[in-house]
Amino acid sequence: MVLDGRLCYGGDYNPEQWPAEVWKQDVELMRQARVTLVTVGVFAWSRLEPAPGRYTFDWLDQVLDLLHAGGIRVALATPTASPPPWFSLAHPDALPVTADGVRLHHGSRDTYCAAAPAYRAAARRITGLLAERYADHPALALWHVHNEYGTTCHCHHAEAGFRRWLRDRYRDLDALNDAWTTSFWSQHHSDWAQVSTPRATQYLPNPGQVLDFRRYWSDELLAAYVEQRNLLRAATPGVPVTTNYVLGDWVPVDHARWAAEVDLVAIDHYPSDAGPAAEEQIALAADLARGWARHGARHHARATDGDLPGARGSWLLMESAPNLIYTPGRMHTREPGRMARHSLAYVARGSRGAMFFQWRAPRGGAELFHSALVPHAGPDSRIFREAVELGGMLDRLAEVDAGVVEAPVAIAWDAASGWALQQRALPSDRIHHHTEVAVAHRALRRAGYACDPVLPGDPLTGYALLVLPALYLADDDTAAWVRDHVHGGGHVVIGYLSGVADEHARIRLGGYPGAYRDVLGVRVEEFHLLADGEEVPLTGGGTGRFWAETVRVAGAEPVDAYAAGVLAGQPAVTRHRYGDGVAWYVSTRPDEGTYQRLLDEAARAAGASPTCPDAPPGVEAVRRRSPEASWLFLLNHTASAQRVPTAGIDLLTGAVVEDAVTLPAGGVAVVRERAGA
Amino acid sequence: MVLDGRLCYGGDYNPEQWPAEVWKQDVELMRQARVTLVTVGVFAWSRLEPAPGRYTFDWLDQVLDLLHAGGIRVALATPTASPPPWFSLAHPDALPVTADGVRLHHGSRDTYCAAAPAYRAAARRITGLLAERYADHPALALWHVHNEYGTTCHCHHAEAGFRRWLRDRYRDLDALNDAWTTSFWSQHHSDWAQVSTPRATQYLPNPGQVLDFRRYWSDELLAAYVEQRNLLRAATPGVPVTTNYVLGDWVPVDHARWAAEVDLVAIDHYPSDAGPAAEEQIALAADLARGWARHGARHHARATDGDLPGARGSWLLMESAPNLIYTPGRMHTREPGRMARHSLAYVARGSRGAMFFQWRAPRGGAELFHSALVPHAGPDSRIFREAVELGGMLDRLAEVDAGVVEAPVAIAWDAASGWALQQRALPSDRIHHHTEVAVAHRALRRAGYACDPVLPGDPLTGYALLVLPALYLADDDTAAWVRDHVHGGGHVVIGYLSGVADEHARIRLGGYPGAYRDVLGVRVEEFHLLADGEEVPLTGGGTGRFWAETVRVAGAEPVDAYAAGVLAGQPAVTRHRYGDGVAWYVSTRPDEGTYQRLLDEAARAAGASPTCPDAPPGVEAVRRRSPEASWLFLLNHTASAQRVPTAGIDLLTGAVVEDAVTLPAGGVAVVRERAGA
Amino acid sequence: MVLDGRLCYGGDYNPEQWPAEVWKQDVELMRQARVTLVTVGVFAWSRLEPAPGRYTFDWLDQVLDLLHAGGIRVALATPTASPPPWFSLAHPDALPVTADGVRLHHGSRDTYCAAAPAYRAAARRITGLLAERYADHPALALWHVHNEYGTTCHCHHAEAGFRRWLRDRYRDLDALNDAWTTSFWSQHHSDWAQVSTPRATQYLPNPGQVLDFRRYWSDELLAAYVEQRNLLRAATPGVPVTTNYVLGDWVPVDHARWAAEVDLVAIDHYPSDAGPAAEEQIALAADLARGWARHGARHHARATDGDLPGARGSWLLMESAPNLIYTPGRMHTREPGRMARHSLAYVARGSRGAMFFQWRAPRGGAELFHSALVPHAGPDSRIFREAVELGGMLDRLAEVDAGVVEAPVAIAWDAASGWALQQRALPSDRIHHHTEVAVAHRALRRAGYACDPVLPGDPLTGYALLVLPALYLADDDTAAWVRDHVHGGGHVVIGYLSGVADEHARIRLGGYPGAYRDVLGVRVEEFHLLADGEEVPLTGGGTGRFWAETVRVAGAEPVDAYAAGVLAGQPAVTRHRYGDGVAWYVSTRPDEGTYQRLLDEAARAAGASPTCPDAPPGVEAVRRRSPEASWLFLLNHTASAQRVPTAGIDLLTGAVVEDAVTLPAGGVAVVRERAGA
Repeated sequence: MVLDGRLCYGGDYNPEQWPAEVWKQDVELMRQARVTLVTVGVFAWSRLEPAPGRYTFDWLDQVLDLLHAGGIRVALATPTASPPPWFSLAHPDALPVTADGVRLHHGSRDTYCAAAPAYRAAARRITGLLAERYADHPALALWHVHNEYGTTCHCHHAEAGFRRWLRDRYRDLDALNDAWTTSFWSQHHSDWAQVSTPRATQYLPNPGQVLDFRRYWSDELLAAYVEQRNLLRAATPGVPVTTNYVLGDWVPVDHARWAAEVDLVAIDHYPSDAGPAAEEQIALAADLARGWARHGARHHARATDGDLPGARGSWLLMESAPNLIYTPGRMHTREPGRMARHSLAYVARGSRGAMFFQWRAPRGGAELFHSALVPHAGPDSRIFREAVELGGMLDRLAEVDAGVVEAPVAIAWDAASGWALQQRALPSDRIHHHTEVAVAHRALRRAGYACDPVLPGDPLTGYALLVLPALYLADDDTAAWVRDHVHGGGHVVIGYLSGVADEHARIRLGGYPGAYRDVLGVRVEEFHLLADGEEVPLTGGGTGRFWAETVRVAGAEPVDAYAAGVLAGQPAVTRHRYGDGVAWYVSTRPDEGTYQRLLDEAARAAGASPTCPDAPPGVEAVRRRSPEASWLFLLNHTASAQRVPTAGIDLLTGAVVEDAVTLPAGGVAVVRERAGA
Repeated sequence: MVLDGRLCYGGDYNPEQWPAEVWKQDVELMRQARVTLVTVGVFAWSRLEPAPGRYTFDWLDQVLDLLHAGGIRVALATPTASPPPWFSLAHPDALPVTADGVRLHHGSRDTYCAAAPAYRAAARRITGLLAERYADHPALALWHVHNEYGTTCHCHHAEAGFRRWLRDRYRDLDALNDAWTTSFWSQHHSDWAQVSTPRATQYLPNPGQVLDFRRYWSDELLAAYVEQRNLLRAATPGVPVTTNYVLGDWVPVDHARWAAEVDLVAIDHYPSDAGPAAEEQIALAADLARGWARHGARHHARATDGDLPGARGSWLLMESAPNLIYTPGRMHTREPGRMARHSLAYVARGSRGAMFFQWRAPRGGAELFHSALVPHAGPDSRIFREAVELGGMLDRLAEVDAGVVEAPVAIAWDAASGWALQQRALPSDRIHHHTEVAVAHRALRRAGYACDPVLPGDPLTGYALLVLPALYLADDDTAAWVRDHVHGGGHVVIGYLSGVADEHARIRLGGYPGAYRDVLGVRVEEFHLLADGEEVPLTGGGTGRFWAETVRVAGAEPVDAYAAGVLAGQPAVTRHRYGDGVAWYVSTRPDEGTYQRLLDEAARAAGASPTCPDAPPGVEAVRRRSPEASWLFLLNHTASAQRVPTAGIDLLTGAVVEDAVTLPAGGVAVVRERAGA
Repeated sequence: MVLDGRLCYGGDYNPEQWPAEVWKQDVELMRQARVTLVTVGVFAWSRLEPAPGRYTFDWLDQVLDLLHAGGIRVALATPTASPPPWFSLAHPDALPVTADGVRLHHGSRDTYCAAAPAYRAAARRITGLLAERYADHPALALWHVHNEYGTTCHCHHAEAGFRRWLRDRYRDLDALNDAWTTSFWSQHHSDWAQVSTPRATQYLPNPGQVLDFRRYWSDELLAAYVEQRNLLRAATPGVPVTTNYVLGDWVPVDHARWAAEVDLVAIDHYPSDAGPAAEEQIALAADLARGWARHGARHHARATDGDLPGARGSWLLMESAPNLIYTPGRMHTREPGRMARHSLAYVARGSRGAMFFQWRAPRGGAELFHSALVPHAGPDSRIFREAVELGGMLDRLAEVDAGVVEAPVAIAWDAASGWALQQRALPSDRIHHHTEVAVAHRALRRAGYACDPVLPGDPLTGYALLVLPALYLADDDTAAWVRDHVHGGGHVVIGYLSGVADEHARIRLGGYPGAYRDVLGVRVEEFHLLADGEEVPLTGGGTGRFWAETVRVAGAEPVDAYAAGVLAGQPAVTRHRYGDGVAWYVSTRPDEGTYQRLLDEAARAAGASPTCPDAPPGVEAVRRRSPEASWLFLLNHTASAQRVPTAGIDLLTGAVVEDAVTLPAGGVAVVRERAGA
């Protein structure tokens, strides 16, 4: 997907919102900004098929021809994320139903049940017509299926689908009863007909049911995607197919498993904090996308002519906001230059470009204040001027697409663990797998280590250190994966709430963390939650927060200990030699500095080293490497100039870097490193 | 509605809650308090018609006769705001349905759908019977239709009504598609049958649909009102008809447009803050009511014998709370004397009296702790003693009813702009038209200027200054109204978020504020929202809050500028000579002192002057003027005595004021000014 | 229920969650912990009857035999709190419906409508079968009906039941209209068919309807309980029957009235605060349970052989959490020793033992992290070791079961007042009967006084002082009860919001508190609510919070007065000699110290004295006394050792106490007092 040797740059383009005279201006402005790729048609169903069976493709023909004439490639979208109003009236049974039984109505987007046969048939129909019509269009570079799969439903189609999925998974009703622990609260099913979606009920729901409902929807939505993909692939075997992932706790999609079915992992990403956490969120999201991409079936090798094959783990930032950061209750305007720095931060971590939602700000509609490359004020605006600058920068960086991101640390991330930790009645309502991963990722990033997210079972060759932050679920294979890895010489840091439960979210009994007691040489008797703002001092000088535990050592040596309270004198952090490897256990959430030092110590002991040991604090360093070259991305997130020792050529300026580069406040350098440097 | 030469004084009287022996005591107490008018029968339907078609008017006959014998006039209410339980059972299709599809049940008040034919027919029937029976009753002074129109519905009657209304408005489905920007998110309608009310949907609703749904309900409710009014007018051509407006963001009523259909604008008003904001809220609500009244068709000229015709813009405070201020979560007991001062604050700003909900506190029911003139403790109570005092005060003030409130400043207020700014996904969830109006109104009030709310298109003769705070919507006529006014020599102060969108809430492109860029000589590229508590310093010494903008001058001169942050050095406030006039732009929310000084400067430059330049801070001064006389209301909101230079006669004490009046802490004077003073 | 001369100790045992091999280990561990009683089968319906009419009692047979062989007695539960999934499918009309009309679905527990005939029939059937099968089982010690009755419903069965109940209560529709004040807001019913449950409606509901809906459900649920009890009693006349009360504002159960129908009052109790409030909540809950038990019909005299009859007011803590305190959003791990101290705190105040939910922590299900005596970590854990210790302690305390708790103060508590004060539109949303009782109870406890909760109408012989904190409702009998008591020489302290309303929650007019003005010699004109954190100084040196009033004395003498604000100089606390007694009125919520001193003064004046005047602060002292002996419980809630003068034998250590016992930090002593000490 490096188009004609260039990185992807552009965004969602919705010509259906504008009269034809604007289209020409758009293409002209795109050329001015060096746009290479636009996503067309994401929400165009009601324009393509304004009434059932009445098709109006002519405007889209014109738009694609115009784009092609302008040298802009197209990610052509199937419009199935928003069926037209006529669809709702024709198929009321295909409208989604909430857990409360409320049937939703059209008037927004995404009002369909993806398990409803009528919806699936309609989606296949419009997709097939698009595939047929545009298979040979020269602008076509990528198929963009749907938009942000993620809606669920409790209608009778969904219930039937859930039951079918459960029968496939468990075969036997007793196995389901066992997995869901239906012996609790008299929930034993004696007939498949009694099994339903987790609808509104009197009190706490069954956590096994809720977890499997998420899994079912991931698979049902994936099936809906695959149906479309297959149609498109059949029509255009050489054109890659993708769908844009949406991130968030509510999303019932196991992105890693989906990766095997997409030709290019693509994510939409919108940081939710206007401060330095924005950069932390970007780094984590980009790393996650790369981790998912490493699980892909690599169909994107079948890329169209003129495209580079893409490095291992490369992916695409499909949507981001040009100007604004959406914080709760308030849109924050990005400071000058920050959009470009953010875009390059994604590219540094493996994105094959930077795409935005959307090209031109709409006059109306639900998201009329959503950020755009051409804002309401038009092209004579800071935003568009920065877009032009960014286009120039990306143009000079195409070669980095061949580089694989270097990472000596692996960090486990698992969708199902995240879902399982959303159950109610946990020890705290602040427990989130994603948060625990983010805390560890932040500490590693501050310590200067790049890391790759991995899934249980992934090969770990090449990683000096493996970190498991609240990897709550562990089936026997996962337990063995960790055990064998450490036994064979691997180093692992395991955080609290890891391996506590099996794949059905049932507790592994006998002491936490059930799956890893042997590897860790510890046995946890009980947990102790700290109140908000409460800290427990550690003998090593730091503090623990949020969570603490009664840790009984059984072979492990204490590394740090609680220094006060009922746990005073008892171990907080332990280390255990197991086979040829080392396993650390962290039973609390250390303060940032302590956690950073701890992970740094564990990483160094495992033989890892930071990406750029001499980078000053606040300068993020990421390296991509190909067999032929390496590129060092240096992103200065501070408000003053920073000097970083390195040598090579700064691609953005073309300047030769002799021994160091000086980054202005907020500045970026991408240095093609001198061999041997 | 000045009854027999007296101001209106009284409140809701609900004799149906009491046995007949209490009625006589009530009339006696009313006489003691010099009550002139009571509203009877607002919630009496189930007493007037306890079963379908079974009528029991005899008790009401008795009550009206008793009141008449006591010299108390009656605002006779139609009871249609609360149909009896039998109505719900007979007409389940006339019960309201929420956006979620929940059909509400009787058990409170207002459980009907005003678009349901059965409801409308029943309302006409009971209204017709009341009109017939009491047309000639000598106590009858005013018809009080319904109560606080404002409920909406999503049932099939409402949906059909909405569609009819939309067909009337847009004629053509394409026009509706265009107005609602249905090209966004594939919402194009290809048949009127696809158009529905904004029911529960998956994600953000269509803002155009939501806005029109409000407009539809304003018109549907108005039609329901007009049906009743016509019946009453036909029966009693000489008796004015009104309905009591309820205020609030949730209310789908365009009060200004309704004013043309009522013979007297009447509002219910309950401040929501126990501190000085109570007085600010009162001043604004009273001014709004007067502004609406100025849009009336002045049917109240057809007042009954013995009534004064009423000054221009006069209106009536129909409901207020005698003793309590309802703050969130807590009822605040008004300090001694504050009820009277508040009552006179309304009269100062044009109310033809002071009415209360309710006369006598009920034993039970949903609002049993609602404040009343005769509280649970009975007449031997501070509250009733203050009620008697207030009656005496109002008795001495009847002459002011002839006076028009003097205001040199006009401030724009627009229901539809308020509704449009309630859409979701705005740049901030703190944006409210009403808040922006209130902030400007407060600054003007502190600077000593009286102001009249005006609507887009209103004649502006007589106003030195026009202020537009977040007048979000501007159709082309509104844009021309401002342009022509300034071109012709007018002075205007325009705040951020004014003229940003057209009448369909679609952005006017090319830079904010689209409708006024030419008049202002500025072009706004982008907005910058500040966090709660965040301030940006201004070069003039003040600070800006909440909102800031990148303002490019295009003819305007900077008056004040941002002094820090990414906007440092760029204009915050500008002034532009346009034609013979002057247009100011305020791109941030200045701190109170700065805003007050700014508006004072703009007003003085425009030739306006404060009502009473020598009034000390905390003393509110309002003047009413008739061709024959002028009256200066002085309300001391401070906790110490205050001296105000003036001359004339203090109507409350009868004392001659030679050169100044000294107001005790919390005290009030109403001075008939010496001619030429 | 002191089993074979031992206190009850054990908890909910759910063998259906575990394979048979675990059962034997369970019985062994129970013996190790000296468990005497376990509750079996609470949620076992779907295991006992996995499909309609297919019964599988064999596993339960085995379990009971095993327990019996191990010397463990059984509280055998009817499983009706959680019908199996097949029940929902067979009887959809028996699923509960919310006020919004949402019919809930199985998937949790408690998804049934207790008014549905199908549910009631099914519940009787399974109960009858259990009674028949296990009537003669030697392990059977107690029948435990259902679990935590408390769910309500709005389905048509519930509506019909509500109407029947109302017809029984009011006979005449006019009486209902009057009681509910349907004259307010036009809610007059002209036919019984118009009367419904308080379903979702447009605005505030009718408070009389809401109050009666609570009362109805208390009676409907009681009827469901009685049906089961009668079946059980018929089968086993000698075995007591109970049900475990759940506490909380949402619970529509009048526990005191239910007491007449249970053979042993049993409560589930979970403190909600991890700090010292936990101990306060325990003291209050235990006292309430004892108060309810004193209203019982004393059927438990019919205890099985080997059981002590139980002292007056004795009851049973049926559920508590072994290790955790569930605070909002977080589970707090109890500090070492605190579980035992808490358990003895319940026993001190009349519990016949300490039971826990649950015996063994489950692997899965909705409450998988709920605390258990055998935790996830297994028996090698602090929790189980403490459980063994507690078993030993309780074993040494069996004799105290003969003692009645001594209390010189009575404090009124009334379910209906609590419900009435949950109506919306009260003067403050912070008004709760339970909170007001808790504040007074805490002050009395700190002052060292034990108190018995009483209900209006209870005999007051033996109580020196009666306290009424916000006893909102007072019918004429209640008013007479207080009046006669004081007239006859009783002393009473009445707090604000007492006697304000009649039994239908209608205000008693003429000045608050309508029911007690004569006794108190005061008349309250109006209330004044204070803001959060606001205080009003009192002339006595303390402060008032939350609530204040304009109190006019009419015979009473001021004891303390407001010292600032609009009430400055007016009485805050008054005292009135009435007949031979004394009545105090407290019109505000005094700060803790002031309230403690005030109640201490009132109690001493009435002739009461603290339980253990020499106990240092933080040491709780409670005495139980039988005709033969007395036992002094001393619970040291402080973090340091405390010395308490007393003499006798410490049952826990067996040591002779000569003149004082020294309690270690967090320690407990139970001293059989030397006669005459």
